Amino acid sequence: MYQLLETINSPADLRQLPRAQLKALADELRAYVLDSVSKTGGHLSSNLGTVELTVALHYVFNTPEDRLVWDVGHQTYPHKILTGRRERMSSLRQFGGLSGFPRRDESEYDTFGTAHSSTSISAALGMAQAARQKGEDRHAIAIIGDGAMTAGMAFEALNNAGVMDCNLLVILNDNDMSISPPVGALNRYLAQLMSGRFYASAKNMGKQVLRVAPPLLELAKRLESHAKGMVVPATLFENFGFNYIGPIDGHDLESLIPTLENIKQLKGPQFLHVVTRKGQGYKLAEADPIAYHGPGKFDPALGLQKSSTPAKQTFTQVFGRWLCDMAEQDSRLVGITPAMREGSGMVEFHKRFPGRYHDVGIAEQHAVTFAAGMACEGLKPVVAIYSTFLQRGYDQLIHDVALQNLPVVFALDRAGLVGADGATHTGAYDIPFLRCIPNMSVACPADENECRKLLTSAFEQSHPVAVRYPRGAGAGVETEAGLQSLPFGKGEIRREGAGIAILAFGTLLYPALQAAEKLGATVVNMRWAKPLDTELLLKVAAGHEALVTLEEGAIMGGAGSAVSEALQAAGIAKPLLQLGLRDEFIEHGDPAKLLALQGLDAAGIETAITARFGSLAQREKTVKVTLKSVA
Amino acid sequence: MYQLLETINSPADLRQLPRAQLKALADELRAYVLDSVSKTGGHLSSNLGTVELTVALHYVFNTPEDRLVWDVGHQTYPHKILTGRRERMSSLRQFGGLSGFPRRDESEYDTFGTAHSSTSISAALGMAQAARQKGEDRHAIAIIGDGAMTAGMAFEALNNAGVMDCNLLVILNDNDMSISPPVGALNRYLAQLMSGRFYASAKNMGKQVLRVAPPLLELAKRLESHAKGMVVPATLFENFGFNYIGPIDGHDLESLIPTLENIKQLKGPQFLHVVTRKGQGYKLAEADPIAYHGPGKFDPALGLQKSSTPAKQTFTQVFGRWLCDMAEQDSRLVGITPAMREGSGMVEFHKRFPGRYHDVGIAEQHAVTFAAGMACEGLKPVVAIYSTFLQRGYDQLIHDVALQNLPVVFALDRAGLVGADGATHTGAYDIPFLRCIPNMSVACPADENECRKLLTSAFEQSHPVAVRYPRGAGAGVETEAGLQSLPFGKGEIRREGAGIAILAFGTLLYPALQAAEKLGATVVNMRWAKPLDTELLLKVAAGHEALVTLEEGAIMGGAGSAVSEALQAAGIAKPLLQLGLRDEFIEHGDPAKLLALQGLDAAGIETAITARFGSLAQREKTVKVTLKSVA
Repeated sequence: MYQLLETINSPADLRQLPRAQLKALADELRAYVLDSVSKTGGHLSSNLGTVELTVALHYVFNTPEDRLVWDVGHQTYPHKILTGRRERMSSLRQFGGLSGFPRRDESEYDTFGTAHSSTSISAALGMAQAARQKGEDRHAIAIIGDGAMTAGMAFEALNNAGVMDCNLLVILNDNDMSISPPVGALNRYLAQLMSGRFYASAKNMGKQVLRVAPPLLELAKRLESHAKGMVVPATLFENFGFNYIGPIDGHDLESLIPTLENIKQLKGPQFLHVVTRKGQGYKLAEADPIAYHGPGKFDPALGLQKSSTPAKQTFTQVFGRWLCDMAEQDSRLVGITPAMREGSGMVEFHKRFPGRYHDVGIAEQHAVTFAAGMACEGLKPVVAIYSTFLQRGYDQLIHDVALQNLPVVFALDRAGLVGADGATHTGAYDIPFLRCIPNMSVACPADENECRKLLTSAFEQSHPVAVRYPRGAGAGVETEAGLQSLPFGKGEIRREGAGIAILAFGTLLYPALQAAEKLGATVVNMRWAKPLDTELLLKVAAGHEALVTLEEGAIMGGAGSAVSEALQAAGIAKPLLQLGLRDEFIEHGDPAKLLALQGLDAAGIETAITARFGSLAQREKTVKVTLKSVA
Repeated sequence: MYQLLETINSPADLRQLPRAQLKALADELRAYVLDSVSKTGGHLSSNLGTVELTVALHYVFNTPEDRLVWDVGHQTYPHKILTGRRERMSSLRQFGGLSGFPRRDESEYDTFGTAHSSTSISAALGMAQAARQKGEDRHAIAIIGDGAMTAGMAFEALNNAGVMDCNLLVILNDNDMSISPPVGALNRYLAQLMSGRFYASAKNMGKQVLRVAPPLLELAKRLESHAKGMVVPATLFENFGFNYIGPIDGHDLESLIPTLENIKQLKGPQFLHVVTRKGQGYKLAEADPIAYHGPGKFDPALGLQKSSTPAKQTFTQVFGRWLCDMAEQDSRLVGITPAMREGSGMVEFHKRFPGRYHDVGIAEQHAVTFAAGMACEGLKPVVAIYSTFLQRGYDQLIHDVALQNLPVVFALDRAGLVGADGATHTGAYDIPFLRCIPNMSVACPADENECRKLLTSAFEQSHPVAVRYPRGAGAGVETEAGLQSLPFGKGEIRREGAGIAILAFGTLLYPALQAAEKLGATVVNMRWAKPLDTELLLKVAAGHEALVTLEEGAIMGGAGSAVSEALQAAGIAKPLLQLGLRDEFIEHGDPAKLLALQGLDAAGIETAITARFGSLAQREKTVKVTLKSVA
């Protein structure tokens, strides 16, 4: 079935093939990707779209000596398969298995780890500049999608690269599609380029390139320009100092390979515009690339099936419903997403409130300050953003939102472990990086119903508030209708025990309650990492001999440290065990397993507490248990 | 002397003036700016460059109903003078006085607080969108310099704005100059626009605009284009969906006012390209706009004079010298700055090692990942960046540098209080936001000599290290020649006392030593916020009854919390007082005064310790004092 593919154990093998066989290889590779992803789940549409480009790049360039930097990197399955990892594809995104993204420690062909978008041009430029400084003759190639091109970082890199005399090739993989449908002026411009209103300037393209790989519609354009006596306008990328070539068909090896071979001879910054189709070659994915962006396991013959058992409500869905309900009640609400409509649960909101929905593109910096501008005018912006992506808007959160004390709500999805996506996406740092900022508040709902209520609490404030909630489903607590809030900055005692009190911030409340059963411990649902419920804390501290803090986030500087600071500020030096994510990057894998490895499941919590405070645990004794109802 | 200006107490007064008097008013305004800045110090060149533009904007637009958002905002002195703050200019940048930047709480004419660059388009777009949603008919205007346009954030905003049907006007104030000389492809492109290789497309400009305000060289261009039979190419800004108008002379009110009046009638996103000159009207500043960018007090008749008393060596200078010395010794070193050559002390390095110096423009995100790319290839990048600006590259530091554990040195200038620049520039958060990141280390030199040595220590590591040092001079400790390092992650006892031990992180070691004299306390120079010298900490903890941590940075999550975490992890619950910056934004003013207000001078430290641990202080007793030499 994979006769040719099975002979390719490295790009060196690929480069031995006669060119005439490459098409057949690409077909096998595409089939292998589909087969493989259908068994493991993972990214599909994007990988089907990069099959020919991957074959062509490894065929033409001398990898790994020439450096390929894949932007985002979720489209690197063909690359992984061709670079000696074919047989390991069955372990993709599983614990101990292949990463879903390029990783330097996985293969020498993965020259730069990616996952967050729009880093590739910067990294490849760094590599190209290093080669120049060291007098090494190699190519550095960034492959970036049209969605990723909207991020400011990509422009910063273009602006820098255009004036440096490096052998940098930027390949724009233009599939008219980010994860969400494309937005923004750049996208419109690219569509214009493709529709032929512009095309590459002949003077800059080099005759060789022109001869072997005529841009789409090139002939028609040439006629048109002759007719009008036009001098061809420079493209946007030429304005940045690049030699623009394209657009060419990214599924046509007969265009790709000669074009790349010619570009290889050129000096200075080159920009190749390649047009591909997400899901190419698999009809169902071609028809619905968003659905097939990151599917779970499925039967390729049948395609994705609706699950018969209704899935548990995710926090993302809780947010999406709350957003619609609150928007209905308060016309000041506006919703902002940096290109994560689906992931952030905003599809319904977009449909129902199109004028108040803003997908700003992959542009976290702009998203935050745009929200600040609207807040200045009396609107109430809700910025839906993954914890890990808020890192991109951190300065804007400090300088534009918090400093001016503007009422912006940050709905931080994927706060904590993220499972298969791994270290690049882990939302581990938001509590430390947010709570040190004056005027900021940080809420940590323990379950779905609290998430809804704390979003309402956040929305009621006149200052910035982040509400952090993890990926996936929680304890399964049903959300109440209506828009009730919980008191600002207040926690609650959930279980009354003795000796030890566990102070839980967020969803780890539930394993804490399980552990507490065994330990006879008190459990407090703290709910807010900032402001801390100091009154409650001091009361609990006074009544217990030791405290344990628990959070799905970095221990260093996290909510546990907030507890420690508050205790010391009150003159209380009390034994405290801080449980949370250790000071290490967390691998990809099953979330429950990862949580257990961090010692944050019920058993791990119990073990850690016993190890530290064994004699204080009220094990085996009968203790009075009161479960206060959720306020 | 200021006959006209003194009649202008608000823009409403200005709008009463006959147009013929505006030139005279502008002349008075320019004289007032020069006079005022020469007495207080502050930004000069940029403010001399915006005089006419400011007059024209307030004359044509209905401020504050129409919203002006000044990017960076250091060029808003004329704006402040015309909006009721003329008489308060003598208090500029002083404690309790006018801010050097726009502030919403200072004036209703300051619609958005700025200081970090490139936020204005995002904020103004937010305002324009809010007006549209609320059905309010007002203009939103962003005024942004060509330097600020290089930041990715500005492109993210253009990309979003170009497809929104808002009444947004972006004015590019093109003076061919950021703080440092301009870099990058965009700058080159703007120069092309001005030199006439391109000009605004006639079809988009509107005939009225053309008639009253011909672009510079417009006539020549028109001839040229007719001669060649050209269709005028779209500018880069038109590619983004803006209607591009210009360039026009930003010092010519006869161009500015009619152009703005015409633009006011247009709908949708408008882009006006205005050419100004930094330092305009003051010959000395025109000749050397960098020197007059932010001068201290001076006599306008004489200009800046060389100080007769040699100033104390600043940390910036210590860094600059170290960089050259290390570059001489190690050819792998490369230096990177996001447009802060002067501020970061890299002028000499640039001169001596031009091939290894990279000013990437105002592009912190790119700067960090560009460094990561070079580190992948075996170079040793040193990224010189202010603490407050690293907030812009935070995700890149996590995702591209720390996660891949690349040996990049971050030289964090302006870590701590910054004096006259105030809250926007305060480097208060770097310890919390850096130490929660796995693989990162953070060094906090106590003085100039340690700064040099810890930079060497950082450079020796094979993982990322930040070295944080404050603005200005330190204790005045002479730097040793050579490139000795200090042990990684190790502190030292600087004074042996009893009862209380003060653990100082950074330059507050010196006031700590003073306070300790009075208190009989031990003083430890911790040097590293991460990794913490746990061995030393535990030894000190065992020998003292209470501990005090001290840092010029946020208490929340800071080095003091690291100490607390380490103690608790070792099972030690010991009284701990964490001193540092409180959870509030810190105003502008004299640094020493600000430090005292935060209780971080010697007297404040003593008072705080006595208040908390009075009975433990060994006051009046004779204690054995050992001053260990700096290792």
